[in-house]
Amino acid sequence: MMALEINTGDTAWVMISAALVLLMTPALAFFYGGMVRARNVLNMIMMSIISMGIVGVLWILFGFSEAFGNSWHGIIGDVTQFAGLRNLGADVAFGAEGHQIPGLAFVGFQAAFAIIAVALISGAPADRLKFGSWSLFVVGWSILCYFPAAHWVFAFDGYASEKGGWIANSLKAFDFAGGTAIHINAGAGALALAIVLGPRIGFGTRTMRPHNLTLVMLGATGLWFGWFGFNAGSALGANYTATLAWVNTMVATCAAMVAWCVTERLRDGRPTSLGAASGIVAGLVAITPACAFVSPLGATAIGILAGVGCAYAIGLKFKLGYDDSLDVVGVHLVGGVIGTLAVGLFCKADFTNGVNGLFYGGGLEQFGRQLVGALAVGAWSFLVSFILAHLLKATIGLRVSEAVEYNGLDVDQHAEVGYDLSPITFSTPHVNRTILLPQDSVGTGSDGARASKEA
Amino acid sequence: MMALEINTGDTAWVMISAALVLLMTPALAFFYGGMVRARNVLNMIMMSIISMGIVGVLWILFGFSEAFGNSWHGIIGDVTQFAGLRNLGADVAFGAEGHQIPGLAFVGFQAAFAIIAVALISGAPADRLKFGSWSLFVVGWSILCYFPAAHWVFAFDGYASEKGGWIANSLKAFDFAGGTAIHINAGAGALALAIVLGPRIGFGTRTMRPHNLTLVMLGATGLWFGWFGFNAGSALGANYTATLAWVNTMVATCAAMVAWCVTERLRDGRPTSLGAASGIVAGLVAITPACAFVSPLGATAIGILAGVGCAYAIGLKFKLGYDDSLDVVGVHLVGGVIGTLAVGLFCKADFTNGVNGLFYGGGLEQFGRQLVGALAVGAWSFLVSFILAHLLKATIGLRVSEAVEYNGLDVDQHAEVGYDLSPITFSTPHVNRTILLPQDSVGTGSDGARASKEA
Amino acid sequence: MMALEINTGDTAWVMISAALVLLMTPALAFFYGGMVRARNVLNMIMMSIISMGIVGVLWILFGFSEAFGNSWHGIIGDVTQFAGLRNLGADVAFGAEGHQIPGLAFVGFQAAFAIIAVALISGAPADRLKFGSWSLFVVGWSILCYFPAAHWVFAFDGYASEKGGWIANSLKAFDFAGGTAIHINAGAGALALAIVLGPRIGFGTRTMRPHNLTLVMLGATGLWFGWFGFNAGSALGANYTATLAWVNTMVATCAAMVAWCVTERLRDGRPTSLGAASGIVAGLVAITPACAFVSPLGATAIGILAGVGCAYAIGLKFKLGYDDSLDVVGVHLVGGVIGTLAVGLFCKADFTNGVNGLFYGGGLEQFGRQLVGALAVGAWSFLVSFILAHLLKATIGLRVSEAVEYNGLDVDQHAEVGYDLSPITFSTPHVNRTILLPQDSVGTGSDGARASKEA
Repeated sequence: MMALEINTGDTAWVMISAALVLLMTPALAFFYGGMVRARNVLNMIMMSIISMGIVGVLWILFGFSEAFGNSWHGIIGDVTQFAGLRNLGADVAFGAEGHQIPGLAFVGFQAAFAIIAVALISGAPADRLKFGSWSLFVVGWSILCYFPAAHWVFAFDGYASEKGGWIANSLKAFDFAGGTAIHINAGAGALALAIVLGPRIGFGTRTMRPHNLTLVMLGATGLWFGWFGFNAGSALGANYTATLAWVNTMVATCAAMVAWCVTERLRDGRPTSLGAASGIVAGLVAITPACAFVSPLGATAIGILAGVGCAYAIGLKFKLGYDDSLDVVGVHLVGGVIGTLAVGLFCKADFTNGVNGLFYGGGLEQFGRQLVGALAVGAWSFLVSFILAHLLKATIGLRVSEAVEYNGLDVDQHAEVGYDLSPITFSTPHVNRTILLPQDSVGTGSDGARASKEA
Repeated sequence: MMALEINTGDTAWVMISAALVLLMTPALAFFYGGMVRARNVLNMIMMSIISMGIVGVLWILFGFSEAFGNSWHGIIGDVTQFAGLRNLGADVAFGAEGHQIPGLAFVGFQAAFAIIAVALISGAPADRLKFGSWSLFVVGWSILCYFPAAHWVFAFDGYASEKGGWIANSLKAFDFAGGTAIHINAGAGALALAIVLGPRIGFGTRTMRPHNLTLVMLGATGLWFGWFGFNAGSALGANYTATLAWVNTMVATCAAMVAWCVTERLRDGRPTSLGAASGIVAGLVAITPACAFVSPLGATAIGILAGVGCAYAIGLKFKLGYDDSLDVVGVHLVGGVIGTLAVGLFCKADFTNGVNGLFYGGGLEQFGRQLVGALAVGAWSFLVSFILAHLLKATIGLRVSEAVEYNGLDVDQHAEVGYDLSPITFSTPHVNRTILLPQDSVGTGSDGARASKEA
Repeated sequence: MMALEINTGDTAWVMISAALVLLMTPALAFFYGGMVRARNVLNMIMMSIISMGIVGVLWILFGFSEAFGNSWHGIIGDVTQFAGLRNLGADVAFGAEGHQIPGLAFVGFQAAFAIIAVALISGAPADRLKFGSWSLFVVGWSILCYFPAAHWVFAFDGYASEKGGWIANSLKAFDFAGGTAIHINAGAGALALAIVLGPRIGFGTRTMRPHNLTLVMLGATGLWFGWFGFNAGSALGANYTATLAWVNTMVATCAAMVAWCVTERLRDGRPTSLGAASGIVAGLVAITPACAFVSPLGATAIGILAGVGCAYAIGLKFKLGYDDSLDVVGVHLVGGVIGTLAVGLFCKADFTNGVNGLFYGGGLEQFGRQLVGALAVGAWSFLVSFILAHLLKATIGLRVSEAVEYNGLDVDQHAEVGYDLSPITFSTPHVNRTILLPQDSVGTGSDGARASKEA
């Protein structure tokens, strides 16, 4: 077996990017987990974590092959070609000559995309979906919605296989890192699942505040960190395009966060940390399809559009009556659509693909292609998710009981509680008594030693 | 002074991998810290953090030299050769021609391994060990157990020095990233320390629930992220082997997590987040020695073995009566043994080293080598740790008083408490009084501004 | 448009380093956020987060150009040259032949520096500064203090532009990664802002304990992780110098942390987790200017100096009466001065720049240059920050009301509270009632399922 001359710099960049993208799903778990109430935090986190386990294995078994195997009419890859990752040995490399990376680097990078796509959906059915039903939904949605959409959008002719998907190669809609395949796809699935599931008890009449906003911020900033792998890693090498995507990913997110905070300040009187965190995610979502096609000033404009647009879009659920608990529709579907369409407005021939959008004299042609891509992925995902959710509802059931919804899913679905922070307690199995020592003894001990620093 | 022609891609990969591995010890601190009760969280975290400080300095002074200096009969490196990192200037590079990295890149990468090895042990004596005694144990165990074992397993002839360790070069047991040197080594040390220390008050009769499962999950997923540096970085370059290790590290962990959750579902009725987190770590441990020698399907099988095996192994402590508080033995010793032996079963001549294991027609020869390596490292570490713990017990003492164990180690050993989350309080030094403002005023203020988003 | 032959390994290293440095600001947010009381945690975090948004956009619009455009007498860059990142297309690369990186890689890397510089200041005015005033201070300080100082220190002749700043090219003070431009700059600004703002209510008489030390430790270790990008990334390539900076960044931090803990043990009786976290940051600050100029043993010595020195320096505020809430002066100004001056003592001709410091027979010349650089940046930042703070005070005001300071800034400035951890509660908008279910039912459910693991 002979090793090819692979480019070590490109390979290093794709490997670290893959790890960054994989990190995004735990970050998402904390972003979502902090937003629900304390009694559901573990269930919320587990919905993301189990997605990692299930999709990671499916991807190795046949998912990568379904997405990147040789295409059947641009619709679906050959499921057998790379089944169990066969035909991906040391002699297989992808990419242009001089910049080749081992095929397995691409497998790992794309695996992390497959994982986060379905995990994004979990914010919509939060607080009321059975964990077992979610696990089955993850299997079905990945096979029927994500692996196909990844094929349509990410499988370029001649990269992993000779023939790839229809959106990338025939329609030629531009989606650098997954505005359609990831965000519109997940957002549409989230909408369908939320509709079939029905609203939480008290939706629209009761405030449901995040239980831990430091956890929300940890998640949002972790997502930002990982997203550099998502967007700049999608260049599949350490080149100019990757650095353009890097800078655009930074500035669009900065602009969206400030825009969301300013919107809140003007509308509600105060900028909130939840708003800043949501603005970060909205900016990241919107720049995802566009990051290699627009200038940094264009990226700033897209960020502002997403920050303001999504800050208003999250109110839609109250007007339209679907309960998308954590605003997957408002942020990922709407943000994904904003970004995907913005490519048709802001793309510039100076950058990747050499096409000018509407604002640079290119007319509406590319905008039209973007619209078709967005609609195709969104419609397919909504339809399949709707049917899938109804199938689960009719068989094993979707919702936990009303009592469980009141008491929290953590105890019922996982036999755990998130926090037990009382500093001085212990419990015996039979008595289950709590002993509190005098607060003062704690205070004094602590104060004494800290005096030199604090007082 | 002349700079060599180093490979920038390989060097970038080793440097970022080194940072990832260093991140694993704080991640471990949170994983362990979340599992203890709130009154011990800081002590638990500090056991990992102080290990970073102590071992980092020892490594520079003589540890690297002890592990990678020229070998004395395969047993120990020349402690003077690289003392204080001398002889590691700009003209020193390691690795094959065309793929050389600066010697200091390897020093930093291996430093992070030395740090986490001893930190892993800290989960076993949790909740009852004096902080000063732990600090001395860190010094002793690193010098007597880790630096030697790293020499045996990781010092290949001709890489950093002419002659390396006996397991790597004479026995030829395969251990890609440290199943023996790290996990069996730490697990055996943890068992010895737990036995000498004796069980916690209430062990076996009282439930001791994790105080913060979001922190546990943060730690487990942080470990997973860092582990890509641990395993794929051990290729010491951005090459095919690294990408194979990357993919195997992902899928084995996915499989182990799902396997642990399924085991809990069938055995206990519910999958827990603690189970998922533990499954992640078990999968990572088991694939560590094997990640460059097995196929992705083999890695999946190893993950399943580890997930089910360790889910049962953590019950051993109740049957055998040693109190390994946070299951270092059940996860690291057992998982390390599973992974090390699995190499002899699943390794395939297609991959690194070109040897077929039992399942690919290679017979039991490699399995035997693996068994000898595992036994040698485990026995040495157990013996030395047992003596070391007894020495500390006989001199400065190991355990905190019974009162401290009840009240928590944070106040006594560090004069701090982990959390003071009351939103509206302030205290004066003399009165130390707590003033609570009406909850409603908080609630109303908050609800008011959030109304546009939530209701 | 023609793509240059860029070095992919160097580019990969700079891109991942840039992401690591960007991650440092959220890490700082958690480090600071954990140190304040629970009622101010969100405001503390938001001060860092909004800095990311504001400075990120300013940097793209004109900040990079102000810092790295062609110099006007070494004092300020040409603001128009790279305005909106023009003249930074695919044909622009920086660095030595064979090791060039795209210009945008450098833009992104330096953006993250600009962001964290001002965010560091936020620890000094913690607990009492209006959020709007902070936002304006961020704008003013970045334009007047950071962008110029970055020009002076980081703009080398012939890298991004033909002519660069006076400290780097005329004075020739050595500052590898920002001891002056970042830490002395921010520390002096923090001192000025704290003085103008006045002390918190109760400063010096009341203990103000950190509300969440796990969050503090998360922040400190996140900073450490990101700092490898900060220091080793400043080599702007994956080369020997980067690996030297990597190893020195590790060992100086290890040494400083142990030194701080030992200082506490001897002075106060116990090493604290806050001390360990502070020691980590002090070591990182001090090694920043020196990391490419000193040996690993020199780095260890610098770490010890910083650990002991800063552990005492944080007491200055009580003696001198300025209220630097979270010790920005004690850690960043003092640590930055220690590190900057230490270069003049410990630098060695073997390493970058080829100059021997006092301890290697080089006399006091380099020490003098270091002193001038430190004084120049510190004095300018203090003066400008003092005026800027007074301007804000005289116009929109700096401080929140006394009532808000008591009740916490989170509710007043952001209409949120950090935590709502009660596991079993729900609230209705009108009644705002809390329903508590019997603890036992939670305990029993949980205990039951965990029995096989814990008892």
